[in-house]
Amino acid sequence: MRGVSVVGIGCTPFGKHNGIGIIELAVQACREALNDAGVPNERVKAFYLGNFVSEALVHQGSLAPMVAYRLGLREIPCTKVEGACASSGIAFRHGILMIASGICDVVLTAGAEKMTSSETTTVTEALASAGDAESEMRLGLTFPGTFGIIMRRHMYQYGTTREQVAMVSVKNRRNGSANPKAHFQKAVTLDEVLESRLICDPLRLYDCPPISDGASAAVLCATEIAGEFTDRPIDVIGSGHAMGPGTLFEMTDLTTFEATVIAAREAYRGAGVSPSDIDVAEVHDCFSIAEIAATEDLGFVEKGKGGPAVEQGLTALDGSIPINPSGGLLAKGHPVGATGLAQIYEIVRQLRGEAMNQVRDAQIGLAQNLGGTGAVSTVHILKRR
Amino acid sequence: MRGVSVVGIGCTPFGKHNGIGIIELAVQACREALNDAGVPNERVKAFYLGNFVSEALVHQGSLAPMVAYRLGLREIPCTKVEGACASSGIAFRHGILMIASGICDVVLTAGAEKMTSSETTTVTEALASAGDAESEMRLGLTFPGTFGIIMRRHMYQYGTTREQVAMVSVKNRRNGSANPKAHFQKAVTLDEVLESRLICDPLRLYDCPPISDGASAAVLCATEIAGEFTDRPIDVIGSGHAMGPGTLFEMTDLTTFEATVIAAREAYRGAGVSPSDIDVAEVHDCFSIAEIAATEDLGFVEKGKGGPAVEQGLTALDGSIPINPSGGLLAKGHPVGATGLAQIYEIVRQLRGEAMNQVRDAQIGLAQNLGGTGAVSTVHILKRR
Repeated sequence: MRGVSVVGIGCTPFGKHNGIGIIELAVQACREALNDAGVPNERVKAFYLGNFVSEALVHQGSLAPMVAYRLGLREIPCTKVEGACASSGIAFRHGILMIASGICDVVLTAGAEKMTSSETTTVTEALASAGDAESEMRLGLTFPGTFGIIMRRHMYQYGTTREQVAMVSVKNRRNGSANPKAHFQKAVTLDEVLESRLICDPLRLYDCPPISDGASAAVLCATEIAGEFTDRPIDVIGSGHAMGPGTLFEMTDLTTFEATVIAAREAYRGAGVSPSDIDVAEVHDCFSIAEIAATEDLGFVEKGKGGPAVEQGLTALDGSIPINPSGGLLAKGHPVGATGLAQIYEIVRQLRGEAMNQVRDAQIGLAQNLGGTGAVSTVHILKRR
Repeated sequence: MRGVSVVGIGCTPFGKHNGIGIIELAVQACREALNDAGVPNERVKAFYLGNFVSEALVHQGSLAPMVAYRLGLREIPCTKVEGACASSGIAFRHGILMIASGICDVVLTAGAEKMTSSETTTVTEALASAGDAESEMRLGLTFPGTFGIIMRRHMYQYGTTREQVAMVSVKNRRNGSANPKAHFQKAVTLDEVLESRLICDPLRLYDCPPISDGASAAVLCATEIAGEFTDRPIDVIGSGHAMGPGTLFEMTDLTTFEATVIAAREAYRGAGVSPSDIDVAEVHDCFSIAEIAATEDLGFVEKGKGGPAVEQGLTALDGSIPINPSGGLLAKGHPVGATGLAQIYEIVRQLRGEAMNQVRDAQIGLAQNLGGTGAVSTVHILKRR
């Protein structure tokens, strides 16, 4: 298999984009990535777009070729991939596979979601389709409920405190306050999190990400030709993509997402690195407790030690493993289909040394994207030269 | 690139499946394909599922890992791909790519859609998301309207007669009358088509496919190991996947789908065959006129000669290029995400010599799947040993 590098990245601001449709949002992110790479349209040989629920939210399907056509691409195979909130992690993964295997030299990958033009109840219902419509979700268990149960179980099983979970939100909102593309750019205090509106006990408002619009993109090429486009390629050294049970009732341990554990194992093995080699990570904090679970599932800390880790500052910008310097989903926003590649966007900026919250001397970065109740996860490891 | 073979196929009956959800439908088709192949779960290294709008129709997203988990698969990467009505053509294509490139040895591909549990207006709206939500579809142009315009243009441009177009329906309904898995198993006369209820002038009811539930699947493996599973593998010798404009206003010729032309060119080149070498074809007759356009776009007849071809019987079971021996979408039904792999199911049965409407001495078969207003198309060419 050939080496694969990221040579261009793009990301729209996340938030409420009035009057801009999902196709135009995706086109903006793609154009930014192609310009960043200096890659002309005719070099792009395939396009993968991650999107979760545009058919349900904005009545737009067939999104991959529609975006590609408006971008001026012609003839090439265009595919939308869906894995709930991990959709664009999967899109990025397919860019890698197409190049590593020798099928294409240059691939454009993107993610997009347009959520704010729908009623909140419509969004909640659409997101709930990431669970099992015939069992848990039919009974009224939407995702705040799912992660409320996971949080309660983590607290019971490991003695994780309510305050430790809230500290994830405090950290990520502080990080996000420096990110001009974040939906929320305002820090919050521990008390504000703990006293915010109850959503689903024990989850409160500031434990949840906002409903956002946004798009993200990355241009990938074979490492052997990256020099044609940039003098600062970022190499993809590990990629994992795995499944797990998609419901709480099928999970063997409510505090562990098997899909993340398996995808991480594959990515670490491919990269030939261990968790302690990672300098910076963007993980899927769709709720504050999810960051704690991810910190453990990725092997950054022992199982059950994710709460103390955030309390001790290990995951802060100056900690041993800085997590979500972008602000994560909690501050940056979570336009679900765009999230996976927005994580890649941040990691590439970190490794280029141009991030807002730059982690000192970051050499190796990791991005972890999760879909549904852990039905799917992708893990990618990137490295600067 | 390595050779790829189909070693197992499965397909549920198409029609109204009361009390069976989309996950279970897909599981049934997958299990049939795995049993047909004699492939145990642990040999399957990736799963691709084609589905268009399950989030909007049955509130079920994250479908690929959910189906895989219920099927008993574990750990492997599972991806839903979407390209409107070409979704499972794209799933099949990705099975081929993963094996040809050496990434996996065995891949399961499937397609599924559950449509009959929704109101017809909901289905029409969901299907309309395959067009451009912000332009044509917003103005009320749903797909019967789109193909009504295409039909009118074909009649104007080439002198195609109303009767010739109706003969597609007569032929396909006759073929479907022998197919125990078809939604409609009753032949219709020319007069019945011409006098059926007007849907969108000049399109009438029998020019349209029914709204159906169904699922389909195929197991693919590297040709070099196909002998482990079967003594009658069917080889994939050509694969094309291309984009085109997704709206009428962006098309340069309303009677030609560029995506089909380009995908066909890629598939024929890869296979080293020409249209005259094809013994049997399943093409995307989402409306009767679409079969005529496909017959031309695939090069079976000259542009504009698709109408006379059906009138002269060239596309009948005993014609020079038998088209849609399964009954096509018009008779078999069109559970959109399942259609592409249901075409593969029929072509494999033809090449194995076990089809209901067996084409004599069929050696090489072709399947063409179309999404939206031609935004995407896949073309696959299969060959028996």
